[in-house]
Amino acid sequence: PSGGEAAMGPVRLERVVFALNGRRHEMAGGDVHPSTTLLEFIRTRTPFTGTKLGCGEGGCGACVVLIATYNPTKDEVTEFSASSCLTLLYNINLCSVITTEGLGNTKDGFHSIQKRMSGFHASQCGFCTPGMCMSIFTSLANADKSKKPQPQKGFSKLTVSEAEKAFSGNMCRCTGYRPIVDACKSFASDVDLEDLGLNVFWKKGDKHADVSKLPDYTLGGGVCTFPDFLKSEIKSSLHHLNDDSDVTVSREGWYHPKSIEQYYDLLNSGLFSDCTVKVVVANTSSGVKGYKDQDLYNKYIDIGDIPELSAICKKDGGIEIGAATPISKTIEILEQEAGSKSSPNGSVVFRKLAEHMSKVATPFVRNTASIGGNIILAQKYPFPSDIVTILLGAASTVRLQVYSETLEVTLEEFLEQPPSDPSTLLLSIFIPHWASDSQKESKVIFETYRAAPRPLGNAVSYINSAMLGHVSQKSCGDLVLSNLHMAFGAYGTEHAIRATKVEQHLNGEVLTPSVVLDAVRLLRETIVPMEGTSHAEYRISVAVAFLFSFLSPFAKGIKGPGKTASIGYASSSDTDDPCNLPLSSRRDTVSSDDHKPVGEPIKKYAVELQASGEAVYVDDIPAPKNCLYGEFIYSTQPLAYVKNIKFKPSLASEKVLTVVSAKDIPSGGQNIGSSFMFGDEPLFGSPVAEYAGQALGVVIAETQRYANLAGKQVVVEYDTKDLKPPILTVEQAVQNNSYFEVPPGKYPKQVGDFSKGMAEADHKILSTEVKLASQYYFYMETQTALAIPDEDNTIVVYSSSQYPELAQSVIARCLGIPFSNVRVITRRVGGGFGGKAFRSYTIGV
Amino acid sequence: PSGGEAAMGPVRLERVVFALNGRRHEMAGGDVHPSTTLLEFIRTRTPFTGTKLGCGEGGCGACVVLIATYNPTKDEVTEFSASSCLTLLYNINLCSVITTEGLGNTKDGFHSIQKRMSGFHASQCGFCTPGMCMSIFTSLANADKSKKPQPQKGFSKLTVSEAEKAFSGNMCRCTGYRPIVDACKSFASDVDLEDLGLNVFWKKGDKHADVSKLPDYTLGGGVCTFPDFLKSEIKSSLHHLNDDSDVTVSREGWYHPKSIEQYYDLLNSGLFSDCTVKVVVANTSSGVKGYKDQDLYNKYIDIGDIPELSAICKKDGGIEIGAATPISKTIEILEQEAGSKSSPNGSVVFRKLAEHMSKVATPFVRNTASIGGNIILAQKYPFPSDIVTILLGAASTVRLQVYSETLEVTLEEFLEQPPSDPSTLLLSIFIPHWASDSQKESKVIFETYRAAPRPLGNAVSYINSAMLGHVSQKSCGDLVLSNLHMAFGAYGTEHAIRATKVEQHLNGEVLTPSVVLDAVRLLRETIVPMEGTSHAEYRISVAVAFLFSFLSPFAKGIKGPGKTASIGYASSSDTDDPCNLPLSSRRDTVSSDDHKPVGEPIKKYAVELQASGEAVYVDDIPAPKNCLYGEFIYSTQPLAYVKNIKFKPSLASEKVLTVVSAKDIPSGGQNIGSSFMFGDEPLFGSPVAEYAGQALGVVIAETQRYANLAGKQVVVEYDTKDLKPPILTVEQAVQNNSYFEVPPGKYPKQVGDFSKGMAEADHKILSTEVKLASQYYFYMETQTALAIPDEDNTIVVYSSSQYPELAQSVIARCLGIPFSNVRVITRRVGGGFGGKAFRSYTIGV
Ligand SMILES: Cc1cc2nc3c(=O)[nH]c(=O)nc-3n(C[C@H](O)[C@H](O)[C@H](O)COP(=O)(O)OP(=O)(O)OC[C@H]3O[C@@H](n4cnc5c(N)ncnc54)[C@H](O)[C@@H]3O)c2cc1C
Ligand SMILES: Cc1cc2nc3c(=O)[nH]c(=O)nc-3n(C[C@H](O)[C@H](O)[C@H](O)COP(=O)(O)OP(=O)(O)OC[C@H]3O[C@@H](n4cnc5c(N)ncnc54)[C@H](O)[C@@H]3O)c2cc1C
Ligand code: FES
Ligand code: FES
Ligand code: FES
Ligand code: FES
Repeated sequence: PSGGEAAMGPVRLERVVFALNGRRHEMAGGDVHPSTTLLEFIRTRTPFTGTKLGCGEGGCGACVVLIATYNPTKDEVTEFSASSCLTLLYNINLCSVITTEGLGNTKDGFHSIQKRMSGFHASQCGFCTPGMCMSIFTSLANADKSKKPQPQKGFSKLTVSEAEKAFSGNMCRCTGYRPIVDACKSFASDVDLEDLGLNVFWKKGDKHADVSKLPDYTLGGGVCTFPDFLKSEIKSSLHHLNDDSDVTVSREGWYHPKSIEQYYDLLNSGLFSDCTVKVVVANTSSGVKGYKDQDLYNKYIDIGDIPELSAICKKDGGIEIGAATPISKTIEILEQEAGSKSSPNGSVVFRKLAEHMSKVATPFVRNTASIGGNIILAQKYPFPSDIVTILLGAASTVRLQVYSETLEVTLEEFLEQPPSDPSTLLLSIFIPHWASDSQKESKVIFETYRAAPRPLGNAVSYINSAMLGHVSQKSCGDLVLSNLHMAFGAYGTEHAIRATKVEQHLNGEVLTPSVVLDAVRLLRETIVPMEGTSHAEYRISVAVAFLFSFLSPFAKGIKGPGKTASIGYASSSDTDDPCNLPLSSRRDTVSSDDHKPVGEPIKKYAVELQASGEAVYVDDIPAPKNCLYGEFIYSTQPLAYVKNIKFKPSLASEKVLTVVSAKDIPSGGQNIGSSFMFGDEPLFGSPVAEYAGQALGVVIAETQRYANLAGKQVVVEYDTKDLKPPILTVEQAVQNNSYFEVPPGKYPKQVGDFSKGMAEADHKILSTEVKLASQYYFYMETQTALAIPDEDNTIVVYSSSQYPELAQSVIARCLGIPFSNVRVITRRVGGGFGGKAFRSYTIGV
Repeated sequence: PSGGEAAMGPVRLERVVFALNGRRHEMAGGDVHPSTTLLEFIRTRTPFTGTKLGCGEGGCGACVVLIATYNPTKDEVTEFSASSCLTLLYNINLCSVITTEGLGNTKDGFHSIQKRMSGFHASQCGFCTPGMCMSIFTSLANADKSKKPQPQKGFSKLTVSEAEKAFSGNMCRCTGYRPIVDACKSFASDVDLEDLGLNVFWKKGDKHADVSKLPDYTLGGGVCTFPDFLKSEIKSSLHHLNDDSDVTVSREGWYHPKSIEQYYDLLNSGLFSDCTVKVVVANTSSGVKGYKDQDLYNKYIDIGDIPELSAICKKDGGIEIGAATPISKTIEILEQEAGSKSSPNGSVVFRKLAEHMSKVATPFVRNTASIGGNIILAQKYPFPSDIVTILLGAASTVRLQVYSETLEVTLEEFLEQPPSDPSTLLLSIFIPHWASDSQKESKVIFETYRAAPRPLGNAVSYINSAMLGHVSQKSCGDLVLSNLHMAFGAYGTEHAIRATKVEQHLNGEVLTPSVVLDAVRLLRETIVPMEGTSHAEYRISVAVAFLFSFLSPFAKGIKGPGKTASIGYASSSDTDDPCNLPLSSRRDTVSSDDHKPVGEPIKKYAVELQASGEAVYVDDIPAPKNCLYGEFIYSTQPLAYVKNIKFKPSLASEKVLTVVSAKDIPSGGQNIGSSFMFGDEPLFGSPVAEYAGQALGVVIAETQRYANLAGKQVVVEYDTKDLKPPILTVEQAVQNNSYFEVPPGKYPKQVGDFSKGMAEADHKILSTEVKLASQYYFYMETQTALAIPDEDNTIVVYSSSQYPELAQSVIARCLGIPFSNVRVITRRVGGGFGGKAFRSYTIGV
């Protein structure tokens, strides 16, 4: 039944058609919730399990797939990698998706990437491997499409330096990356095979490393990424795409307005007034920490199909980029523009913008994430955007639509406006040309900076900056700067800002030490992190360093800093030279036959299966029908009674089937979730949550995503009455005489005569304190368990556990059943590193 | 979107609400297809697996559940057993269903029925046990509700003779029933416990058999069969039930008109013109061989809610029974009527009708199957109905509705009409009183007969009959019959008929030998089985025996036959004495301690789990999501090329996902489905179907029922060109020199000196021929396998196999993979008897 609204054009997508590994899939509205991600679809609705769920936020690469689109007019296929964990299924209408199973598998034979991953020992736990393969494959396929010269037979057009970046967004916890880089480099046209590390194809030190020993590679990758049937379907539907058939607007759905007008018609229909609607382009913002979906959405408006948002217009004064343009595409456009005649000497701005953008997020996020989405995110929230900062530094303007009105304002002005709501559409971004003025003898200078934990991107900045100006020489020979635009962002601010006072202060001044010092002082007054920002002082000092670094070439009487080390922070100019990358260091191993067969290269068993995604991890085990999924509810209080657990009224809360908590522990069972040498650990904090982060219960829902989202709707009522203050530090623990009982055998034994040694020592320790911070367990496969009840009160638990035998005892004790009634099966562990020992039991229980 | 039809009252059931083992379930239209059976729902949508699928046609009892209904006006709960395999889910709206898990289970403790089944060794393979428990439970619950006197503590009001019939519809292949009868009798108020067979509660021969040694039984059964929440829901919905809210008529659905008018409105709506609609009361006809569903239905019209169809009217001349009245209810009414004052001496007709009806089908079918459904079935098809024959014998009339017209015709006339279609509603059946006329000194005589493979019902008759008349004494003392109604049916006829010529011939005649002989001759002319009817001559001779049996008490100069043996055929009067049942024979075992511990009563392991349905058989293993189901396509030709396999256009055919056939056998694999000492047997007849019944392929669908129905839509094109005629007999095989190769070790060895022996013998065999008919494998659990592909080209097959090791090799050879890649797991076998040996491989493959 219709919602009663006026019918409009074909705004609602009633079905999504796509190819997955060459097979056609068609999903109609009722089959799949509009919030379903591509990853979820692949993992739960198809037999393919190679595409893994790691972080679920675009940050690890475990879920990378290749997406190919087809342009029927140009008869052209475009291939790019994408994080399937963020990509919504409805967003891939008419696309072709390839997973690692589509590259190769047991039945069709493995792909050379998969075989080389195996031969170069590039897969240990194997959980990252399928994503690695997909990133590498996409790089090879795209390199081979380029106009570069034909490589030697068996090689790709990819270069060694490209190979080193091919999977820059993919994380691996086990291998240390070196062998993966080797596997990838083995395809590079300019590789020296003998430089590559240990492998099973030849013996290290052999002077016979030779491409013929490697699993065969054919140029292009040898995989049909876009099936013909889908091409035909696209061609034949070309005529229908603009049919004005009536579509009813209903409770759930995916809407894709094809014009600005349709967009506002939808908004005005009254169906989108509640908070259950989400406006998206690529939906990657749902992966950004702090801005992830907090609730389930029922309706999506996909604005990526509005033509104005995808247009690229080269104008006289600059270039206008549609807001829905992906960051990768933007980089390409900027690079082209930088190299083109139309911006002969203003190229530095475009080039450096492009370079900086290449460090934003990961390749597979940049390939879909829109530049406009980034800007809107930064406009609405205190999101530490790089893009906004550098565009601000480049004096960009934006074009907005608000209902029937079109506005053009500077980015600076836009940022100052109140947080925008769906009534504001960002149409495009205009980046002006900055030409050097040969008459005035002024030269454009532009630098961008970011300080982040990793040099190649995939980490949000602590602070970033872009500085633009003209430099010219006074008649006295002194250099002066003018026209300055100095932007800083991400340092703990509502949004990026211009350091106007600093700009004004420096404009036209000779950069003497005192002028620079005053600039630094003014900057320090400008860069004021919001309360609660971590490492505030560090961020400010980095801002000063950026400023100094920008000014020093033009300063008078100041010795400039050398190139900054690439780890701490990087200016975009630092990466010009790829050899700069720490990855390029290498180690030589000389092997000998002395202890044969020790030293023989032996392939780890079943790596090809890991690479092709056929290896079965816990979450890959076919779940029984009606399987339920859980999400822990964690305490946010350190020591408090848990009075009750409720849910906010919301779509996600409606998905809650039940909450399992301490009261559900069967009679005869114990509240135990783990056990180790310091004793047992409760499964749930009950009646008192003992520490923030302790599990209080488990939300149960029909899908993992529903459970996760429902978990965010939890409201726990705490009460600290009659409770002492929590013990939060070791000092407080000592003071309160609160110790773990250390088993006698584990007491540290004194070794040697301490007093004697100290008495005799040249340098004595009179007093000291050693503090060890906590250590976060990290492994690519998240904690997972699958429990299947079996007859006679027994249970089979598939657990990714480093100690299945202890898991068994904890589960049995919690359930109050004999140990023999619990069967714990561990097949593969997708990375453990200690975290899959004691910490895995809780999940199994 | 609506089908565009006019809105009508609340005709469409949008949701079905019921309780299953005390838990509320609500299914809305989209959740469950209207053709879903209760069994399918329980087995695939709930964790309960105790309710088994045996025959799927109401004939075995494996699927028996208790259904309870609630009458809010009388505040009364009615409990009855029903075959969940025939009951449609939408038909149990507002009912409560109890499965064996609801009686007792590991967690809540087992029910005494389950414990006694165990203690009396009444469960072997266990597949029939849950259904047995449910039939027994329903009998106990109903007996305990009766007005019979309070039994001794620990016993039920059930009597021994009732106990022997308590599970009369349930089949067991393993136990021979004796121990089940013992378990059931152990509850009977009038049992002599020492009479019961071997058990673990006391030692046979002990004189201490004593109820206190038995697992405790509380009067009524101790299970809440109707939860309070559902009572409240029913009470509070009373007012809403007749709301005239608009309901749209759509493509799929369950319609339940509440009046005759609504029924015809529906028919006229145009939506029910195709063959995808089914009119039902209890849907049990879908279990009747020859009249089962051949296709999937999308729409059901449930006429059970039309008040006229459920009315019971005692009229002056007889009793009118609504057509939707269940057979069990009809029996009750007839019994009441027979015992009541209103039909003082006509009671014989009602009593014998009731007795005969108690042999129709099984208790759990009779409890829902309507009397009208039976009549319609017999009117439309050559269905061997008992009910029609006996009602015809009782000179019944029927009331029909055809659109706005109501007609009253004799049953005889109705049967003569062309097969009725949905425009004819059978409203009610009128059975007249047959009073003896004291003035005329005439006495009513009525007998009914059926010849069937089993005396207690659950087998369709070879022939049945009912004969009614008045007997009176002529002044000369001779007896004469008048007013005769002689009905015969089920002998291979379009429908039951009156033997009018015989009636006319006998009316008023003294039954001299020649009169009777002529009657027999006339009967032989009347009883003419249709061409192709099996055992035609036998059926005719039984008809004669029935006639003779009816006439002989009144014949002159003929010595009547004794009471007929109960096995061959039974007249309804034969079962008056329950001791008549063969079941009541018993054997005494005297045990001794001489070989202790040999002879100690030992309980079979886990019988309680079998009884409570927790024991896991292959089909009970939680199927993985997206599991697909298959149905074999069998050849209908003995020796013919299979040209192609197609499907009729139909709803069921739309459910076909694919057909797997010989061409899908992987390269490297063989077309092998079984292997035994005579060699390998192909999986599929390809390219030639070698015998009728050989598998040609497997239809794959999303549910087992879809696959089964799709299998009925198959049209195979055969071609016998260039093929010799098939070999169909052993003689033809000998003639064609077509032998199995018998392995040398298996050749029969000659024992003794045959010629010498024969020469010396008193009686010599000069020539003889021994023919052995084929033997049908029979086990309660059907052939089932569940295959789950695993990594590295391996597969796990759960098979109900007597030889898992051979299953493994056959599967591996067919798939062309190493034996070690196949893991066959046999957990339980629900009856094997040889059929789960070689014959189980095919299913596993
Ligand atoms: C792993 C990861 C790492 C990242 N690292 C960085 C980083 O280092 N630096 C950085 O700057 N960014 C980073 N990002 C952020 C990333 O750039 C943004 O998520 C992305 O650009 C958003 O684009 P989108 O098309 O996916 O937007 P969506 O998620 O589809 O939309 C985001 C929001 O913007 C609105 N919106 C989008 N387009 C318009 C428009 N044209 N008009 C009006 N409203 C609109 C949407 O309604 C929504 O509210 C990272 C993201 C991820 C997932
Ligand atoms: C295992 C088994 C054994 C059986 N053994 C016997 C036996 O020994 N002897 C015997 O006589 N029968 C036997 N039967 C048949 C049984 O009696 C019938 O299946 C049953 O009575 C049909 O009733 P129903 O309510 O289930 O009809 P349904 O299956 O619901 O309907 C049957 C047909 O009748 C139509 N229909 C039903 N009621 C009406 C009505 N009032 N007006 C118009 N059309 C109507 C329906 O549209 C449908 O076409 C057996 C059945 C089973 C399953
Ligand atoms: S799971 Fe998608 S990037 Fe980590
Ligand atoms: S092999 Fe890369 S995370 Fe384990
Ligand atoms: S399965 Fe229902 S009676 Fe056999
Ligand atoms: S125990 Fe009854 S069929 Fe096996």
